Amino acid sequence: MYTAPVLIAGEWRQAAECGRFQPTNPSTANTIDRTYPVSNWSDCDSALDAAGAAANTLKKVPAESRSRFLELYADAIEASADELCALAHEETGLPLEPRLRSVELPRTTGQLRAAAQAARDHSWTRATLDTTANIRSMHAPIGPVMIFGPNNFPFAFNGVAGGDFAAAIAAGNPVIAKAHNAHPGTCLKLAKLAFQALMDADLPLATVQLLFGIGREDGCRMMADKRLGAGTFTGSRRAGLALKQAADKVGTPFYAELSSINPVVMLPGALREHGEALAGEFALSCLMGTGQFCTNPGLVVVPANNDGELFIARCGELFDSTEPGTLLSAGTQQGLQRAIAQLREAGATLATNSTPVNEPRFCIPNTLLTVRGSEFLSSPEAFQTEAFGNAALMVISESTEQTADILRSLEGNLTGCIYSASDGTDDQRYEIIEPILRGKVGRLLNDKMPTGVAVSPAMNHGGPFPASGHPGFTAVGVPASVVRFSKLDCYDNVRPHRLPPLLQDENPLNAWRSVDGNWTREPI
Amino acid sequence: MYTAPVLIAGEWRQAAECGRFQPTNPSTANTIDRTYPVSNWSDCDSALDAAGAAANTLKKVPAESRSRFLELYADAIEASADELCALAHEETGLPLEPRLRSVELPRTTGQLRAAAQAARDHSWTRATLDTTANIRSMHAPIGPVMIFGPNNFPFAFNGVAGGDFAAAIAAGNPVIAKAHNAHPGTCLKLAKLAFQALMDADLPLATVQLLFGIGREDGCRMMADKRLGAGTFTGSRRAGLALKQAADKVGTPFYAELSSINPVVMLPGALREHGEALAGEFALSCLMGTGQFCTNPGLVVVPANNDGELFIARCGELFDSTEPGTLLSAGTQQGLQRAIAQLREAGATLATNSTPVNEPRFCIPNTLLTVRGSEFLSSPEAFQTEAFGNAALMVISESTEQTADILRSLEGNLTGCIYSASDGTDDQRYEIIEPILRGKVGRLLNDKMPTGVAVSPAMNHGGPFPASGHPGFTAVGVPASVVRFSKLDCYDNVRPHRLPPLLQDENPLNAWRSVDGNWTREPI
Repeated sequence: MYTAPVLIAGEWRQAAECGRFQPTNPSTANTIDRTYPVSNWSDCDSALDAAGAAANTLKKVPAESRSRFLELYADAIEASADELCALAHEETGLPLEPRLRSVELPRTTGQLRAAAQAARDHSWTRATLDTTANIRSMHAPIGPVMIFGPNNFPFAFNGVAGGDFAAAIAAGNPVIAKAHNAHPGTCLKLAKLAFQALMDADLPLATVQLLFGIGREDGCRMMADKRLGAGTFTGSRRAGLALKQAADKVGTPFYAELSSINPVVMLPGALREHGEALAGEFALSCLMGTGQFCTNPGLVVVPANNDGELFIARCGELFDSTEPGTLLSAGTQQGLQRAIAQLREAGATLATNSTPVNEPRFCIPNTLLTVRGSEFLSSPEAFQTEAFGNAALMVISESTEQTADILRSLEGNLTGCIYSASDGTDDQRYEIIEPILRGKVGRLLNDKMPTGVAVSPAMNHGGPFPASGHPGFTAVGVPASVVRFSKLDCYDNVRPHRLPPLLQDENPLNAWRSVDGNWTREPI
Repeated sequence: MYTAPVLIAGEWRQAAECGRFQPTNPSTANTIDRTYPVSNWSDCDSALDAAGAAANTLKKVPAESRSRFLELYADAIEASADELCALAHEETGLPLEPRLRSVELPRTTGQLRAAAQAARDHSWTRATLDTTANIRSMHAPIGPVMIFGPNNFPFAFNGVAGGDFAAAIAAGNPVIAKAHNAHPGTCLKLAKLAFQALMDADLPLATVQLLFGIGREDGCRMMADKRLGAGTFTGSRRAGLALKQAADKVGTPFYAELSSINPVVMLPGALREHGEALAGEFALSCLMGTGQFCTNPGLVVVPANNDGELFIARCGELFDSTEPGTLLSAGTQQGLQRAIAQLREAGATLATNSTPVNEPRFCIPNTLLTVRGSEFLSSPEAFQTEAFGNAALMVISESTEQTADILRSLEGNLTGCIYSASDGTDDQRYEIIEPILRGKVGRLLNDKMPTGVAVSPAMNHGGPFPASGHPGFTAVGVPASVVRFSKLDCYDNVRPHRLPPLLQDENPLNAWRSVDGNWTREPI
């Protein structure tokens, strides 16, 4: 049986394997006729060695070569868009249009190009010069980065093409990507394009490596390996915490995105003014991608009044009348069913028709649950169970004070939204709840659903634990996301000709630098 | 028996205690006649509650009040300098002059004033605006910060007055300081001055809290408490790792400085040109403060030639002819003796006279050890045992290649120094070893010993593990050290009047901001 090769040390080779797997087409529940290897430790070990060597070589390569690689790669992805989208659709069930072809693929190439720009303009290095003390510092590559991509973005968060990948490369680090088991064919095709782009840009060929399966123990062993500079993980809390623990033990920076239910607060005036429109906005956001977004609005706080009741009823109708999307995998479906069962056991009640969908694909009915605020507060942990997919929980709050208590009981989240009246009648309520929500989330929104995550220098796709592992970093947005993959390099009294160009008096790279407390692009 | 009060929730009160302790005067080995409490969990719990409330209040207080507090506190420290230095001398044995009075105390007040300036100019917030997408972000307070200060800097790294304290307050966070057991009287006096300054600046009184002893288990429990925003620790690796593990488990940022031997490489040309002067420079740096600096040069790589032999011999003479300083505590003395024994067991030989000092104080003879490069490479871990105090290990290297191998075998360190010839004859050697050393350290120096840690915006007092817990952050240098105690707050589509002043179009605080990729202080 043909098994796909892994990419290690600049070679496509048969894995040193300890198992094999085949992905499943979520739209048919049929096994896809392609086989991928589970690598054993010797593959991991070889990849770490090769990545270490590539990291050293990359230090001597001009930043422009990294930019060129990222741009050639983006071009290649666009040129192969049809094939990539067909593969990704087959493996994830995500709609070809607009999702994969018109949204996620352009986003991915946009991220690669933004990272190319950051590599070129050196904005992520935050060069800082103290001319009096003759001390100079800048952020510099951290070393090989291991990336575990998630199941829900086959392009934009892919370990071998997504935001973490682009950021790690922009900072001058080689990447070891672990393909997600659910879409290995997409990963393989992307890695082939990346490999060609590496050759065309004349970068070390081990700058990008790809493994398919690896055992959980080997994953932890890699994270604890001294040859690794940093790790990232986007996915389930349990798997992420095991990797994080391994990395933390040896002080290796590990950026994890573990879970988020993205609270939305509907203040009374907002629903009074345009509750019906907001129901449409919410349903669209919540069911988009079958609800399988990190920033999916999974918890909505609604006032206990007539407007609130109408809003919930309208959302329920929209959920019932919208065709349920396909879920990414059997595991996603099981996890979602389990989470809904847990929420119902805790006391949430159904606000939608839950007739099972009788189709040979992975899906469940769009599901809306409700719970009274007092009940939520009696077991806030249970009601924060993440239902990853096309489901959400509405919490009916008796008062602004109760809403404040509900927000106080929340764990860290990626986003938090507040909808309020346009005429200022909610402003007092806003002032009470905003500071509480602000402390719990990375990104605070007004009058807007959280599912759009713009690739902006000002974006924060991160937040307090467990949304992420460190609330000071973002996984989306350039140059901030690039800084995650850096170490701070200080030069004290180093002779001028030995300084990196970024820190030389003449500023030969024309970069923004903080010189004696002022940001400037001028030479000294 | 009178026991000093703890400072909790704005009150000086008797501790809920589970034990008591008395410090020791290291210059006489006599117990000091003052008693301090070991708090039980109820004190820790009260402090966490009060800190949480103070954190909320601080958000509403203008930054100028924090600046004023830091400056009033610095003034008060200067006004009480005599008393503080006498206390610190009694408790640490560090020389009154120049160390405590003319170096460390002015450094400490300088740090407080630099932090005041950062709070005032908001440079640490790194405000970033994307005017097209209307997304804006800034670094904001992370929440209560728990600080475990070290034994070796009773002022400059003190939990209630040092760099971490100043940075945490500058970012708008309350501090819970754990006094170091070796100098509780100094901590108490400092906390009293801080408390008065809090009242004068009209800040929440629980902005600064002080505990003396707490059990190891309670320390870990505090680090794992949801009310805490971040923690810092400077000290022994064992205690630090226990706290770090507790913090990591719940995703609380924890900044630890755990150990560093600060390698120095003497290239052949440097010793040929002025070996004798360099011996003097090294001995001065290594014996300063009885070698009890985080950046003490503990490992020196010397060429295996006549200049190297002369250099080692001269260093040995200087070590022997310099009066051994007093060590901070009986524990420091025991730890140093143990480390030297371990180095000797591993195969290092003495290059100094080791006649014990027969005086009733904590001290050991200045100790220089040597080992051949090949032997070092046979057990590099053992030879990296940190000998915290007036001791160092010289490694005699046969070749540039051997020096490269020695550097490759090192753990992460705070600093690394390279001395080279002024005439360029060492430049080829420099090019071989610099990339290796660069990857292992936070601060790279040329022709200069590492013990001076300037308070500069470009400083990095940090480095790869175990020098610190994350190689992207510095514990010294403003504003970079302040950013550690922040979370990234993003505002997406938030209505203009609800934005924090820093992110408003008008830039009312006149701060440096990155607007659409360019740094500017102009309004939009």
